[in-house]
Amino acid sequence: MTHRFRDLLALEPLTADELTFLLDQSKPFQEIQRHPLKKLATLRGKTVALAFFETSTRTRISFGTAASRLGADTMNLQAESSSLKKGESLLDTVHTLDAMKPDCLIMRHASSGAADFVARHLEIPVINAGDGTHEHPSQGLLDALTIRDRKGALNDLNVTILGDISHSRVARSNIHLLGKFGCRFTLCGPAMWVPSELEELSAAPIRRVFRIEEALEDADVVLVLRVQTERLHEPPLSANEYILLYQLNAERLKLAKSDAIVLHPGPMNRGIEISPEVADSPQSCVLEQVANGIAVRMALLFLLVSGFTEEGPHPANEVVQPRNRRATDIKDPSHASR
Amino acid sequence: MTHRFRDLLALEPLTADELTFLLDQSKPFQEIQRHPLKKLATLRGKTVALAFFETSTRTRISFGTAASRLGADTMNLQAESSSLKKGESLLDTVHTLDAMKPDCLIMRHASSGAADFVARHLEIPVINAGDGTHEHPSQGLLDALTIRDRKGALNDLNVTILGDISHSRVARSNIHLLGKFGCRFTLCGPAMWVPSELEELSAAPIRRVFRIEEALEDADVVLVLRVQTERLHEPPLSANEYILLYQLNAERLKLAKSDAIVLHPGPMNRGIEISPEVADSPQSCVLEQVANGIAVRMALLFLLVSGFTEEGPHPANEVVQPRNRRATDIKDPSHASR
Amino acid sequence: MTHRFRDLLALEPLTADELTFLLDQSKPFQEIQRHPLKKLATLRGKTVALAFFETSTRTRISFGTAASRLGADTMNLQAESSSLKKGESLLDTVHTLDAMKPDCLIMRHASSGAADFVARHLEIPVINAGDGTHEHPSQGLLDALTIRDRKGALNDLNVTILGDISHSRVARSNIHLLGKFGCRFTLCGPAMWVPSELEELSAAPIRRVFRIEEALEDADVVLVLRVQTERLHEPPLSANEYILLYQLNAERLKLAKSDAIVLHPGPMNRGIEISPEVADSPQSCVLEQVANGIAVRMALLFLLVSGFTEEGPHPANEVVQPRNRRATDIKDPSHASR
Repeated sequence: MTHRFRDLLALEPLTADELTFLLDQSKPFQEIQRHPLKKLATLRGKTVALAFFETSTRTRISFGTAASRLGADTMNLQAESSSLKKGESLLDTVHTLDAMKPDCLIMRHASSGAADFVARHLEIPVINAGDGTHEHPSQGLLDALTIRDRKGALNDLNVTILGDISHSRVARSNIHLLGKFGCRFTLCGPAMWVPSELEELSAAPIRRVFRIEEALEDADVVLVLRVQTERLHEPPLSANEYILLYQLNAERLKLAKSDAIVLHPGPMNRGIEISPEVADSPQSCVLEQVANGIAVRMALLFLLVSGFTEEGPHPANEVVQPRNRRATDIKDPSHASR
Repeated sequence: MTHRFRDLLALEPLTADELTFLLDQSKPFQEIQRHPLKKLATLRGKTVALAFFETSTRTRISFGTAASRLGADTMNLQAESSSLKKGESLLDTVHTLDAMKPDCLIMRHASSGAADFVARHLEIPVINAGDGTHEHPSQGLLDALTIRDRKGALNDLNVTILGDISHSRVARSNIHLLGKFGCRFTLCGPAMWVPSELEELSAAPIRRVFRIEEALEDADVVLVLRVQTERLHEPPLSANEYILLYQLNAERLKLAKSDAIVLHPGPMNRGIEISPEVADSPQSCVLEQVANGIAVRMALLFLLVSGFTEEGPHPANEVVQPRNRRATDIKDPSHASR
Repeated sequence: MTHRFRDLLALEPLTADELTFLLDQSKPFQEIQRHPLKKLATLRGKTVALAFFETSTRTRISFGTAASRLGADTMNLQAESSSLKKGESLLDTVHTLDAMKPDCLIMRHASSGAADFVARHLEIPVINAGDGTHEHPSQGLLDALTIRDRKGALNDLNVTILGDISHSRVARSNIHLLGKFGCRFTLCGPAMWVPSELEELSAAPIRRVFRIEEALEDADVVLVLRVQTERLHEPPLSANEYILLYQLNAERLKLAKSDAIVLHPGPMNRGIEISPEVADSPQSCVLEQVANGIAVRMALLFLLVSGFTEEGPHPANEVVQPRNRRATDIKDPSHASR
């Protein structure tokens, strides 16, 4: 099956068929992770640019490893040493990288819409590795792959999301993806972290619940979000109050379905949003998520990078995804405050 | 044509023929950047050490990408994590790197003369990637390649350089290179940033002009330098005064020849030393400069690294460049203040 | 000869035969460093994870270069950008790395016992690149290789160690290794930096001496340790007093055997613990140590990584090293203060 994805900026505009296609494409790359030799020559001679304007450990290493296991080289631009600090605009920075002729740009940025804005100005494929509170599509895909492997299918699951949903691009990407498969969402956390706007953002059934015990009832999947402890003044709550009210512990997890699974995008604050017992339980999928991250990212790089060097798409079974142009009039986010 | 360049420390000691040779050597590498697969096996098994004692984004990524497109591996030493912070001398640091047997050392350092000093102590080729306010030879070469491509030749051009020339190694490398081809220079900026010493440094005709309108008259090439805003107290000027007096904007650019081209070494402060309209105009060569940077650096690595593994230089058409020994008695710059 | 080393966490539990085996394995990799092309395909398709929770320049570059000269790819996690800063536990961080399926983990950590703790939780080989004040086994091996090359054998040498021995994992690894070969140790430095406990830690004869002149008498090997100047308040001594009392200078070195050699793990504080004259003398092995570091680390990666992909160990000449389990009840060091 060929395709015409050009970028991966968000999961929201994709159809269930397209999402299924991306998940299916990840399967052979899951297999490769079990081989003693995991390196392919598929993208040999290609260069993947990693531009992380926001610091990241796991996502950057995951994309970097995915690239090198496909045989590609990487260019690394990291926030700390970036020209942005010297007053260069985001667009000048990425145009500069682009002039060095990478075959793909993977970018993380603190501003929602940044990857989309950049993609509109570049010819090479752009993968959004997290933009502000908007989306983190490869995380949504790896979560879905993990759920599908454990549950057999994505259809009609009860998905409970716990924590700071308002600032979470992971929650948004999950809702957009899983909503396409008929999942129902229960959001739970301190009121100001559980935005009512989300209910309008998706066609999926979403309810807001403020008692964790109620939120966990009948859950098939529990997605625990990281608490950024520096934000705990917002609700306002002490860490101990948060634990008391919202921590997913073993006792509470019993309220979910007996075969419920637990996801966390990491890094975990053990003992804050998740108890060590739950984190290490057989219901926890945390490390499968990480392993699937490599597979999903290899699939994305394979599709977006190798796809554009071939003579053209084959006519059969084509999934067409025209370059996504957002209607909103996003300006260069690095200039927002000028 | 073979050659006997050993290092690339500065452009000042090179002849027009040698400079033309280096520019010509870059042409095939410009071609390679247009191929879908840009990677060669020329330096497979070689290691290029990148020692950036001063932070850098674009130059470091450019050299790193050049190395990996030639098939070489890289060793990365960056200022932030360097042993220099632990009191090690510059020479001990580079001797340590050298003992790990890289095939070439690319170094940037805040002290003028640092690369030269290091080269005198190592057997491997050294490329100066910027030393204080002295030279940045690969930048001079990529600028010249860009100018030659646009203008057809380097001879007899009127070159206007705008901004903080006194602290600019880019300006110096450009003057040394272009001066060999009979270019005439007009330097313009706040008086204290336009040193009169430069007139003595080069045999080329150099004039100092303090009104930008006068400086731009008849210009074929306008090289705009980056304003380091933290230095604006020196002239002393506010950012707004600088813009008023020295910004290259569209109206002022009309005073130059109609086919004048604009160069900037980046990162640009859009709206300070250059107006967005000029930066994005067809006269601007900013992204060509970046692209040519990869080609020039691939050529340099190819010449300096592969040249020394062959049995010896061929006798015909030899350009001999003996190891450049500066007469000045430069001490280890990291010990300067002891 | 095959082997069954699984990790390299410490030199203390290894026998003289096992240590000799590791040193012998390094010999062919020393040879390779003298070739124009130093890269092998031995570990092509393998990934080496480098997790430096404590900053490092030379050790990280040395292991990274060793990995890439064997054809392996690397994953780099560095303290500055680590999730540990976000409150993640050490074990979660390394489990996350491990889920990305590297073939080996090289780690440095500020807590003694950290590498051992991690190795107990992972299936992949772990190499300790320095854990607190405990051990730095690859440094011990490269020091021994350097000594053996210069002296012909490790047996019955008089080894003088100068400086802050109490905080030095390098001193400990050297004592554990060289002690197995019948070396005798003289420790010298400010009293509080020369712990009497060390005498009990090893079966080797160890004496403490407080006058450097006495310590150097009859020495075959002088190991000078780096003075961390920020620790000079401890003895308490000014830098000048330290120099006066403990610096290894040319005059003092004459008190040692005439063919005595000098080692320093680097980075050196020239003029503090070692005089420039000694550092640059023919008796100094500082740069040989660095060069041997690459060889030792290539040998370790080769043994630990390639060894586990083969069908199984050959029955002949097997050196069996079962996974080392420390009796002490080490907790996750990153949680120590909670």
